[in-house]
Amino acid sequence: MKEAMIIFQPSGRRGKVPLGETLLEASRRLGVDIESLCGEKMLCGKCRVRIEEGGENLTEFQQEEGKFIPPAERREGLRLACAARIRGDVLVFVPEESRVSNQVIRKAATKRRIKVDPAVKLYSLTLKQASIGDPLGDFERLTQALEKRYGLKHMTLDLEVLRSLGTILRKGNWQITASVWNDREVIRIRPGKVTNAYGLAIDIGTTTVAAYLCDLVSGEVLSTHSLMNPQVTYGEDVMSRITYHMMHPDDGLRKLSQAIVETLNSLVVSIVEETDLTADDIEDMTIVGNTAMHHILLQINPAYVATAPFPPAIHHSIDVKARDIGIRINPSSYIHVLPIEAGFVGADNVGVLIAEEPHKKGNISLIIDIGTNGELVLGNKERLISSSCATGPALEGAQLIFGMRAAPGAIERVTIDPQTHEVNFKVIGRDEWSQYSRPEEIKAKGICGSGVLDILAELYRCGIILKSGAFSKNQRSNRYRISQEDDQPEFVIAWKEETSIGRDITISLKDIRQIQLAKGAIYTGCKLMMRRMGINRVDRVILAGAFGSYVDPERALIMGMIPDCDLSKVYSVGNAAGDGARIALLNRNKRIEADRIAKKVEYLELTAEQEFQTEFMYSLQLPHMRDRFPHLEGIVPDDILNQ
Amino acid sequence: MKEAMIIFQPSGRRGKVPLGETLLEASRRLGVDIESLCGEKMLCGKCRVRIEEGGENLTEFQQEEGKFIPPAERREGLRLACAARIRGDVLVFVPEESRVSNQVIRKAATKRRIKVDPAVKLYSLTLKQASIGDPLGDFERLTQALEKRYGLKHMTLDLEVLRSLGTILRKGNWQITASVWNDREVIRIRPGKVTNAYGLAIDIGTTTVAAYLCDLVSGEVLSTHSLMNPQVTYGEDVMSRITYHMMHPDDGLRKLSQAIVETLNSLVVSIVEETDLTADDIEDMTIVGNTAMHHILLQINPAYVATAPFPPAIHHSIDVKARDIGIRINPSSYIHVLPIEAGFVGADNVGVLIAEEPHKKGNISLIIDIGTNGELVLGNKERLISSSCATGPALEGAQLIFGMRAAPGAIERVTIDPQTHEVNFKVIGRDEWSQYSRPEEIKAKGICGSGVLDILAELYRCGIILKSGAFSKNQRSNRYRISQEDDQPEFVIAWKEETSIGRDITISLKDIRQIQLAKGAIYTGCKLMMRRMGINRVDRVILAGAFGSYVDPERALIMGMIPDCDLSKVYSVGNAAGDGARIALLNRNKRIEADRIAKKVEYLELTAEQEFQTEFMYSLQLPHMRDRFPHLEGIVPDDILNQ
Repeated sequence: MKEAMIIFQPSGRRGKVPLGETLLEASRRLGVDIESLCGEKMLCGKCRVRIEEGGENLTEFQQEEGKFIPPAERREGLRLACAARIRGDVLVFVPEESRVSNQVIRKAATKRRIKVDPAVKLYSLTLKQASIGDPLGDFERLTQALEKRYGLKHMTLDLEVLRSLGTILRKGNWQITASVWNDREVIRIRPGKVTNAYGLAIDIGTTTVAAYLCDLVSGEVLSTHSLMNPQVTYGEDVMSRITYHMMHPDDGLRKLSQAIVETLNSLVVSIVEETDLTADDIEDMTIVGNTAMHHILLQINPAYVATAPFPPAIHHSIDVKARDIGIRINPSSYIHVLPIEAGFVGADNVGVLIAEEPHKKGNISLIIDIGTNGELVLGNKERLISSSCATGPALEGAQLIFGMRAAPGAIERVTIDPQTHEVNFKVIGRDEWSQYSRPEEIKAKGICGSGVLDILAELYRCGIILKSGAFSKNQRSNRYRISQEDDQPEFVIAWKEETSIGRDITISLKDIRQIQLAKGAIYTGCKLMMRRMGINRVDRVILAGAFGSYVDPERALIMGMIPDCDLSKVYSVGNAAGDGARIALLNRNKRIEADRIAKKVEYLELTAEQEFQTEFMYSLQLPHMRDRFPHLEGIVPDDILNQ
Repeated sequence: MKEAMIIFQPSGRRGKVPLGETLLEASRRLGVDIESLCGEKMLCGKCRVRIEEGGENLTEFQQEEGKFIPPAERREGLRLACAARIRGDVLVFVPEESRVSNQVIRKAATKRRIKVDPAVKLYSLTLKQASIGDPLGDFERLTQALEKRYGLKHMTLDLEVLRSLGTILRKGNWQITASVWNDREVIRIRPGKVTNAYGLAIDIGTTTVAAYLCDLVSGEVLSTHSLMNPQVTYGEDVMSRITYHMMHPDDGLRKLSQAIVETLNSLVVSIVEETDLTADDIEDMTIVGNTAMHHILLQINPAYVATAPFPPAIHHSIDVKARDIGIRINPSSYIHVLPIEAGFVGADNVGVLIAEEPHKKGNISLIIDIGTNGELVLGNKERLISSSCATGPALEGAQLIFGMRAAPGAIERVTIDPQTHEVNFKVIGRDEWSQYSRPEEIKAKGICGSGVLDILAELYRCGIILKSGAFSKNQRSNRYRISQEDDQPEFVIAWKEETSIGRDITISLKDIRQIQLAKGAIYTGCKLMMRRMGINRVDRVILAGAFGSYVDPERALIMGMIPDCDLSKVYSVGNAAGDGARIALLNRNKRIEADRIAKKVEYLELTAEQEFQTEFMYSLQLPHMRDRFPHLEGIVPDDILNQ
């Protein structure tokens, strides 16, 4: 017997899988989504499952599993799905907290004024029909007319276009419309006079992929669709996906790449179905994404991006035929992948730059783009410095005991009453805040990134924690307690009755330390960049990124995630990376500008800076409050304000 | 029952085939090669088969079949395989004359001096290793070094190369060799310092495909391979293949194209096996072929090339990625397809031009390239005129009763004794001429193109036929007779005992008419071009092409196939088209020259010329002999010489 029958509950999915696979691999094969944030390295503990029957048919409990499964739970049959390998039939129960939920997509297109001058333009022509006295070839007849009528010189045709050229010329009775890419190559010919053309701007985030269908003539956004990045099943963050590739040298990269290509194709299908277009009507595409997403999409080995000195395979933007990477739009079309600044500052950041244009301003901008990774840019028209900070997955809800992605049931907003320490929170998927809901209606499941930051800021503002992050001795509610499990202090955000998991959702000292590490990383990055530039104050702070956009600027200041700045000069700009992709789609000069900036930005490797350690240790503290928030006087007790 | 069992004898191949297919389609499906020169249009009569059993399981005998199958043979069960459709089980016998033989390939590479300056060149480099202080991306590191060391600017990399760049840089310890295409794009990276590079020059003839493996460094031809053009099963000549495409709009073109692409891939495999290279080592490829072969290879609709005014889809040369047309060499490599002059004067003729260079000479060259089609060029550095003449398939051995391709058993050389009218001939595959052989050893099967021309010239030289082509009354041997079958005069070339088909091989008056049409077409073309150019004598005549090379210059003059010219100025240059492909492979400036000439050549559509009819009628006659061949006095009887 070389296969075993595996059944997953509560979904009931079942099937034969080869012996030797882990339960996690088996779950993927059978279409069961189990969380895995670390890329199957027994590091995140998110893939805990309970073995109902057949525990003896699994490989032995490993030491690493013990970190996430205390002895009591071990006796109940809990295992890490990535650690247990199959030797025979098993019945597995996947607890709610280990299931992957459908993430809430937070990448709407922002309103921006964009000058419409796309790379793909339409040219209508009426050609002279071929005759015995004028038997010129179809290609030359077309290109000579394009030159004569529109001044387009040295034009080429994609082979796919050449294949149908003769037929379409005659079908259109020698009147046609040519779609021309960058005044250089004809990528589509349609019979008759046509005036519509479309393109897709794509933002490949580590967690979310967003697609914006744009009218290349009017510049309008016609439709927005997003999907989870399916690579999430191979690892939550960039590093674990690169590790997956390195541990599966035969086909890891191909699998990761195919996963994203299929998602892009699904997005194309959804969009053309919705808008009554055909896939051939999508004649241009721009893509942004961090360096790892960029490399994986193009099947470029991303291993060296993960190792010092982290050089990317290429900085320059790439124009690649859609068909060469398997993307099913108009087959002759190009995909423009924006340039990369450095191994950890990718095309997504370049997208932010061409959207926010710090390089065109005299005053100093600080751009903080926090998605799954943190990318920072500081500067003005004179000089730009970028860096990348390892925020860790805490801001994405990982590594925290009750952390989760921004999915229905996630606590996304929290306020705490300074007097009573009572908590009021809001979960994704419900409009009512908890204090206006009956407990059993709320069904909180965990805490997502924006909730995490709210909690830290509120705990500090209310004096529940101190400048150091430690819990204050002076507690006012029964929400503060010592955990029975690990003897650590914790604070209850949602009571058992308000959850769908049957347990109090808490924030522990350990969790707070994780958030401090994350916010400290960002703050340190900003500080070191400012030092490199010789400044100690910035003129404006721009918060961008799927996550950055949901941070409350005041709270970001309260917790010391960003350097001091006039609160009115802190902007939240939404998915600026996606906007950059859209700008590059609609304006070809912006593509050239993007290459120029990407080349100009100096990359600062933070960990190589002498002051990094000291600065980072200092940045973990929460900032002195009275100096920063004089307007909190009267609202917040004096002892706290004086911290 | 929707299938029937078909058995082909004598091969014994058998299998189920769908009802409704013709026997010819069934033969292809079962791997039985039956001749078909007309593209299944019941026009050539070459696919005659004998039904041994199950004649009632075929569709009815058609009127068109009667042209090739007289009543007596019809009673014996003969059918045209392209006409008879299957309705049930059938046992078929394929007579020897209907079987496709392996053709003898006559396309050796000619010795020519070629200046070696290929499109693909090697550049070795040692790069500075990436470091924290210098984390520049791999692509930029490489291209900056190429610019600094070799002055190569604005370099791009094919995506396939970019994918492996990081790994190879590190494998070679930052020493690498880049293969650069046209100083523009890196198409391969190898670790270390490498000094070898190879390319393939390809000549796609209507009947034969030849491949020349060249060393891109030394320019040497390392290996030559050829194969039949597999499209022959879809039709012997260009027109019948285009017809096949038009009658099978769904997949006809794809099938024709795949057939040739597979053959090119087979040639690559044979060549790399022989030379211990890998397919990746083939880094460049040039292709010549007539316009139809060009379009079909690239899957460009060839329908319009077959209809007046015969415009090609494109004149200009094409650089296409090997992978885009499914050719398995180094995947990033380009294939350079040479330009086209006109619908019937293709890239093969351009190949001849860059090999023979009439455009660089002051005196007038007449180039006659006879393959399956006839392509003519006349001119010098001032002016070049091209035209194409419909020689018909007679010169390829088709349409003659005993015509066949140049395969073993084909009569290829013939001399006739002027006194006795005794025939001496040589068949392909045997060194001894017939007069030195025992009859049963000879095994003649038919007459191929060069044999056909020999026969016409010899019949005329010996007075067996007159200036008009008609048989003389004055016959001296029993080889001359009136056919019992059709009451037409004929002349026996090989007696029954000397053949493998058990019948006398003869040349009939009808055959002679066919050859006259062919030679007259060429002569008319030459004359009309000369008239257009305002000259009445040419300085040199160049005979090229698989067939042209085998024509004896003196006999070509005797039969009036070419205009008057000093015999010492008539050259046979072999496969000049293939040489042109090789020249373009080894010298990139010749590619530019080819585009320039292809554009410069004026195409003369012969059939549109007013004088065409008169000139053609006149040209059918054989020329006055004494004026042309005074040296034949004494050898040839006076009455003949005075014709």
